[in-house]
Parts: sequence; C-alpha cells; structure tokens
Amino acid sequence: MKGFLYPRTATGLASLVPAPPWHYSGDLITVEYRTDPARVAELLPAPLLPAADDPGAVALIWADWQSCGDTGEELLDPVRAQYKECFAVVRCSFEGRTYSRCVYIWVDKDFALARGLHQGYPKKLGSIHQTRPHPFGPAPRIEPGARFGATLAAADRRLAEAVITLTGPSESNGFVNAHPMAHHRWMPSIEPGGQAPLDELVESGAAAFEAGTPWAAEATLALFESPTEELARLEAHEIIGAYYRQVGVTWNGGRVLS
Amino acid sequence: MKGFLYPRTATGLASLVPAPPWHYSGDLITVEYRTDPARVAELLPAPLLPAADDPGAVALIWADWQSCGDTGEELLDPVRAQYKECFAVVRCSFEGRTYSRCVYIWVDKDFALARGLHQGYPKKLGSIHQTRPHPFGPAPRIEPGARFGATLAAADRRLAEAVITLTGPSESNGFVNAHPMAHHRWMPSIEPGGQAPLDELVESGAAAFEAGTPWAAEATLALFESPTEELARLEAHEIIGAYYRQVGVTWNGGRVLS
Amino acid sequence: MKGFLYPRTATGLASLVPAPPWHYSGDLITVEYRTDPARVAELLPAPLLPAADDPGAVALIWADWQSCGDTGEELLDPVRAQYKECFAVVRCSFEGRTYSRCVYIWVDKDFALARGLHQGYPKKLGSIHQTRPHPFGPAPRIEPGARFGATLAAADRRLAEAVITLTGPSESNGFVNAHPMAHHRWMPSIEPGGQAPLDELVESGAAAFEAGTPWAAEATLALFESPTEELARLEAHEIIGAYYRQVGVTWNGGRVLS
Amino acid sequence: MKGFLYPRTATGLASLVPAPPWHYSGDLITVEYRTDPARVAELLPAPLLPAADDPGAVALIWADWQSCGDTGEELLDPVRAQYKECFAVVRCSFEGRTYSRCVYIWVDKDFALARGLHQGYPKKLGSIHQTRPHPFGPAPRIEPGARFGATLAAADRRLAEAVITLTGPSESNGFVNAHPMAHHRWMPSIEPGGQAPLDELVESGAAAFEAGTPWAAEATLALFESPTEELARLEAHEIIGAYYRQVGVTWNGGRVLS
Repeated sequence: MKGFLYPRTATGLASLVPAPPWHYSGDLITVEYRTDPARVAELLPAPLLPAADDPGAVALIWADWQSCGDTGEELLDPVRAQYKECFAVVRCSFEGRTYSRCVYIWVDKDFALARGLHQGYPKKLGSIHQTRPHPFGPAPRIEPGARFGATLAAADRRLAEAVITLTGPSESNGFVNAHPMAHHRWMPSIEPGGQAPLDELVESGAAAFEAGTPWAAEATLALFESPTEELARLEAHEIIGAYYRQVGVTWNGGRVLS
Repeated sequence: MKGFLYPRTATGLASLVPAPPWHYSGDLITVEYRTDPARVAELLPAPLLPAADDPGAVALIWADWQSCGDTGEELLDPVRAQYKECFAVVRCSFEGRTYSRCVYIWVDKDFALARGLHQGYPKKLGSIHQTRPHPFGPAPRIEPGARFGATLAAADRRLAEAVITLTGPSESNGFVNAHPMAHHRWMPSIEPGGQAPLDELVESGAAAFEAGTPWAAEATLALFESPTEELARLEAHEIIGAYYRQVGVTWNGGRVLS
Repeated sequence: MKGFLYPRTATGLASLVPAPPWHYSGDLITVEYRTDPARVAELLPAPLLPAADDPGAVALIWADWQSCGDTGEELLDPVRAQYKECFAVVRCSFEGRTYSRCVYIWVDKDFALARGLHQGYPKKLGSIHQTRPHPFGPAPRIEPGARFGATLAAADRRLAEAVITLTGPSESNGFVNAHPMAHHRWMPSIEPGGQAPLDELVESGAAAFEAGTPWAAEATLALFESPTEELARLEAHEIIGAYYRQVGVTWNGGRVLS
Repeated sequence: MKGFLYPRTATGLASLVPAPPWHYSGDLITVEYRTDPARVAELLPAPLLPAADDPGAVALIWADWQSCGDTGEELLDPVRAQYKECFAVVRCSFEGRTYSRCVYIWVDKDFALARGLHQGYPKKLGSIHQTRPHPFGPAPRIEPGARFGATLAAADRRLAEAVITLTGPSESNGFVNAHPMAHHRWMPSIEPGGQAPLDELVESGAAAFEAGTPWAAEATLALFESPTEELARLEAHEIIGAYYRQVGVTWNGGRVLS
C-alpha cells in the first residue's frame, strides 16, 4: 500500500497529504503576552517543565499560508494550497533545552489538519481571518502606522480577535515561537481502558527558512469563552509585543525525543 | 493531562471529542454495485484477503447524522452534533472471517474526522448532501416511488451523485456494510524513512443498534474523476441494489486484530 | 431575455431562482417573547403602525427547509434545495389590518437570499443550526420532554441561541407570524442622492399550506451583540411561548400595498 | 428608516452594506478569449448592441479583494472585508458608445453580493480561488515565468479553471473590461404577470483608481458544464491574452442610462 497518510492505496494518489518535505509561503501576525504561569504549566505533561525564564509567556499567532509538496502542483489549484491558521504557543524545557510548544491550533482545511496530526499540532477546524498587506487601495502597506486585524472563530463562536499597529522594523519576530517545537503525538487505544499505542514526544523545526524583516507592532487582544475551548483560560495579563513578518518555510520531519 | 483526544489539557474540556461511547441518529442511503474485483483487492493490504464471495462488491453510503457523547450536550448546540458523510465500503477476509472495510470517506465536520482517526476511517473533508424525508410539502415521504438524491464533492469538484427510487420494504439494508469493520490505524514516523509507530489492524462494530425497516430502491450512480481522489477507480459496472434506512447506533471501542 | 431573476439569458436557465410557485418542506422552531414596544415601533416605517394588541411581541423563528420550483428537480440535487434560516418577526398595522413583518433574517444559501429579495425579506447570510427530530438514537422524537437547540451566527459571531422543551400538542403555532407578511422591497438609486427607484410595500402569504400538529414548548433564549447586527436590540424581557411544527408551504406571489 | 440597504432600521447600523463610496484593494487575473459572437449577442437585451469590433471577445476575471466603506472598519475585522470573485465580461454598444458588461459573476460573501445588486452585477455565490504572489517560499513572485492558478465552483461543481504564466510587463490589462459598465438592475413584480417595477439600464465605473504595472501572461482555460449555469456556453475558441494586475479602486455610484 502506498501513500504517506490515509487513505492508503495501490497508487498513493489519494493520500490526504504527500510525503514531506512540505513548503510554505505565508504572513504571520504574532501577539506575545503574559498569562498566569500556572496556566501554562498545567499544559505541560511530564517530563516537560516550564521554561525557566518568563514561564507565563504566550504567543498567539495568525498565519495566512500557501503550501505544497515537492511537486508544487497544489499552488496551481489553490483550493488545495491555501489555508489559514491561528495557534497558541508556549515554551517548555526538556532535558535542559528550551522548546516551543503549540498548545491550541485551528486551521481551515483538512490537508493542514492532517499535516498537524503528523507534526503533533493539536489541530481543530476554525474560521481564521487576517488583514492582508496590499500595495494599492485601502488595505495596509507594511509600513509604520499600518493596522492589521486578526480573528478566530470555531463552531460559530468568536474565540479571539487582535488588532496590531506597526511601529517599525524589528530585530526579532518574538521569542516564544523561536525554538524547536516539542509536541506529543497521541492516539488512544481502540480498546476501552487500553494503553495508548501512540504516545510520543517529538521534536521538529524548519528544514529551510527565508523571511523578510520582522516589523514590531502595538497590539490589542481579546479572548472569548466557549463551551468547547480553553484558549481563554490563557488570559492575557500583559501584552509583551507584537510582530508582522512574511516567511518562506520548508518542513521535512523531525525526531523522537521520548 | 486529560482529554480523550488532542488538545489534551488539565481539564480535558478542549478535547476534540469526548471519550466513547458515541451515539448517533441518522439516515443512510446505500448504493451497492460491482466493480472490477482487482480494484477492490488492490485496496486490501496483507494479511487481508478479498472476500470469497462477490469480491467486487462495493457499497457507497451517504449518511446524515446527529451524534453526541454520553452527556448528549452536543444535541442542543447542533453545530457540534450534526454532520454528513459519504463513504465507500468493501469486504475482505481476515483469518477466515469476513469484514467490512471503509476505503474512502468524506465528512463535513472536524469532530467527525477526529472520531474517524480513532476508528480507522480514512476521513477527509467534503461537501455531502442527501434529500431528507419529510411528512409535508414537496420533499419525499418514505414510501414506494419516493426519490432521494445524494451528492459528494471535495475541493470544489463533484465526486459522486446518486438518485434512488424506493420500491418497498426490504429484509436487509445490503450485504457489503453488514460485517464488523476491519480498519488500519496508521501514523508515519516523524523521522524520514523511519518505521511507522502506529500501524494497527483493528476491528469494531456497533455496541448498540436500533433501526427502522430498510427500504429497497432502484438507483442511478455516477462517479467523477479528480486529481486527488481515487473513488472513480472503483467504477460501477453493475448496480446490485440500493436502500434507505433510519438508524440509531452506539459505538464504544473495538479490539486490535494485529 | 429570459429568466425570473438575474442573470437573465437567452434561455433563462442560469436564473438564480425559477419563477414561482416555490414549494417548501420544513421544520419550524418558534420562540415568542416580549421586548420594549418602542424597539418594535422604530422598525416600522410609515405608514405602518404598531399592532394595537401586544405591540412588543416578537417571534424568533428557526427553519430547516427543503425547497424547489415547480419541476422539483432541486430536491434530487439537494445542495440546491436545502437551506436553513433564522428570522425575527413582529406585527404591524396597515389600513386597519394586522400584518406580520420580518425585520431581520439570515439564510445559508444564495437561492434563498435571492427569493427573499423578491419577497421583501431582508436576508443576509448566516450559519443556522437546529436539532432535528429522529425516530432512533439520541436525537429527540417529537414528544413531551423532547429538547431541541437552535443557534444563529453571522460573520463568525454567535447572535442567538435557544433551547426548547416540548410540553404537548398545541392549538396554535404562535400569534406573531400568523398574519400575511407586509414587507418593503427597496433599491437605492444608482445616482448618489437620487430617489430610490424601488420602494414598495408588498403583501404576501402562503398560496398553499399543510402542517402537522403544533407542539407547545418551554424555552430559554439568549441574544448576543455584534458590531453589524441589531437583533440584540430586540431584547427578550419575557418569554411568551415556544412551538415546534412541521409544515409544507407553497408561495406564489403577492400584491403591492403601496 | 436609515440604512443604505436592507435591513433598514432606526439607526442604519444593520444595513448589509454602508452607503458608497466603497474602496477596494485587490489582485486581478484576467483571461481574454474569443467565443462565438452569437453567444455574446444573445446576452445583450435591446437596446444594447454587440460591440462593432471583436464582438465575440470575453474576459473571464478572478479577483481577490479587501474592501470597505469610508470608515475602513471592515479591514480590521477582515471576515467583513475579504472576498473573492470570478466574473465574465463582454462588450456592448449603447447610443454609439462602447461599454463593458458583466454577464455572469460569483462571489463568496453576502456583502459583496449585495453591492452587486446595487451595481447591476448578477451575483451568485461561488467558491473562488487564485494563487497569491508572495516574496518568500514556493508561492510565485510577480516576475517572468511565474504561474498562477485560478478556479471557480458553485453548488459543489467546478465551473472554470485557468493557469496563467507571466511573460513580462504590459501596456494594458486587456480591452474587454476596459470601458464603463452597462448593467441592468431588475426586480420582477411581486404580482404574477405584473410589470417589473425595477428595470433600469445603468452605467458606472471607478471613481478613483490606482494600480501597478499590468503583467502579460500566457493562459490555459477550461470551462465546465453545470445544470444551473451557462458560463460554458461562452466556449473558448481562442485565447487572446492574459494579465495579472494589482489595483486600488473606489466606486461611488453611477447614472441611469434608460
């Protein structure tokens, strides 16, 4: 049987995603803030530990992507290439090294959700929007004073909204999502009460990366309650900073940590 | 960490689905047909073998569901309970026993997709529609001569469409999807070239089942090509039969076959 | 040029909707409540007057429809027949007669939106869900104690949610949406500051109607603020009653009142 | 009653769109081709006449927009600003002057559909996608050899797909959509057989316009049949040319021609 992911077939054609490497072009809106460190710590299963420095830091990130496998064919049938996502990242420590860790994420396409399963991103479906820069008309340029909105909803409820106002070029794009990712891949047993047959801690990061100058920004952020979500539990006590950046990324696998 | 599925948290509330049992109310439109048995056989990884009898039989099934966990709370926030799906089922043999096996399936909600991951259904997102019976106005009653349409699309392309015309009550709802399901659960290694850490053959079936009288029907069926799908490769050489049935089902886990 | 509505062509085939009559099968969840009568009155342009009796009464109605033109062909390609809507109805008086009037309405398909333009319903797009009755499994039967949820969202924000609990058969399905509809059809001038070329008060109602027994219900209702909606301005001071009913309706035009 | 469009209220806030001017930032992919001139002529109601020169020319245009009213607030809640559309434009003659005329158009948001009603665009809902340029990663830059895909679907069926390959900067962005628009605004009578109360021929164009250099391109184009659409009737006999351009536009009303 061929195919990187299901459905696996004689040809492999129907696989929901092709094998890595996966390539991405996209724009990132990042809002970094501090929450109660206990709310971050409770999302870190052993043996992960809270980051030693600024353990309550959270990055809420919106991304507007075009992506493809090595053939690039998805780019010419863009319903198969384009997707948006919003995700919350915290930091943690494993064997003395600092990792980033995505604790919540929503995307708007199935191929993106499936790639997340492989990578250990806990993806749900959502409705994600972010203002796009444009050289003409009322949409913003990437320049001082430019304002970008970003929103997230799932199951017909708004979960988050942010507005950022660019202030100027920046040396960094933030520090929370700046480490290799440490994620769990998990599948419960098909047998009630059985041991999970998949329970891995994995590490991965970009295999290739190019990007424009990050822009720093001021931000407002609001998180909203929902009966099925816990994002608002990471309540924003203090905005640390915000960023806008255009990037090109390749992802090509990772390794098992434990 | 709590939660049946990801994202796993301190409370377990955010899990994309609650732990089984899962309960379903729904209407099924089934079209059974014969394709080239080799096209079925090529979808059966060893040690699965083709069914001894009628090995080219396929059931293409549309289902319009309302579903929930044990609390039933999803039913009162129906965006979280309602979904539709279309799936192709074949039969196979394992250790001398006949199983049904879903080889392709499309659903329209993330919670349904996630349950499928657990159960070994190879779920993608799609757009699924089927005529609903209704006691008044132009929609059909469940009675002789009533006609129901059913369609499937994914990535903005129509993949399948059927029309069935009820002829009368039936003893069965078909024979292809009538066995326990034998599915694979599969996750490739995070390490390129590594061995898949999850590669299980699992069996499951209904833990509880109630249903109305099946209705037999005549059917027309058309399958369409797509650059990312292989459903049309199971081309319909001959219609065997078609059925309409209303059911209530509970699913509560299964067991590992190998 | 042929075609009931745009795009009008040589054949008329592409028209967004066929000419009436239009036929509907559907389930209605109605919640009647009292708001400040001034909030109703401010939605009644002259020469409409508030209803003499109970002028603050509002009906918020969810409907789950299958619809078609005279050929019925849409029913067999159900993506073209099925839609859901949620709408707010008040009463008013014109030349001494009482009318119902839809003041806000959201639907989830373009053909439904277009029919609304013709009928004077002020339709926007939204995401509408309501629990469906089912004879098996966890979904409710239509019987005492059965509970149905109903929700409305637009632009990624939840606008309304209700839960009703059936108490028993009822003589009526409510009194607010029980009169002929008095709607405005309005198109502003293409010339800034010009006089609207379409500004009609029209009356219409069902050309044919069949229905099951209405069921009375108890209800909870919540309305939510949105920057682009005014539904929550019709705040619920007191629930009058709630109802569940299955209906078949034909609409076949109306007449100009002024 | 206030509000540019329905629902009209005491405050005007709920209007589906604010009053013009409307401002747009967007990217246009244009494919110009020749069809049978009779197929264009049959879409021109009297007193419109076919264009004297190249009367079978058609432009099929994809656009990826961000739009807003004068406050610009939609840009910061981008679910209310962003939409995509695909539309077919032909030319015609009225009183000796050449006009462009949109004969078919699909959009993916209700506010865009409503603006089209006002402007005389015969808008339906569809699913529209086009590759976006990006400075990093696999998505194309705007440069020679860059390839962009564009697709259209409605009611779960693909209606059109194109791929363009940029060749170099161009003096024009095509000639078919280069004139003021001549559109009909039409509403049938609420009374069966009655005279349409709105049947206007209107002209409008951009009130302000800025744009980048157009890029010429080679193109492939495929149109597909659908039971409810007539786009494929404008079959492509010969590709004339293709273009990519980024624009900023303001629309602020028009005038009645007849």
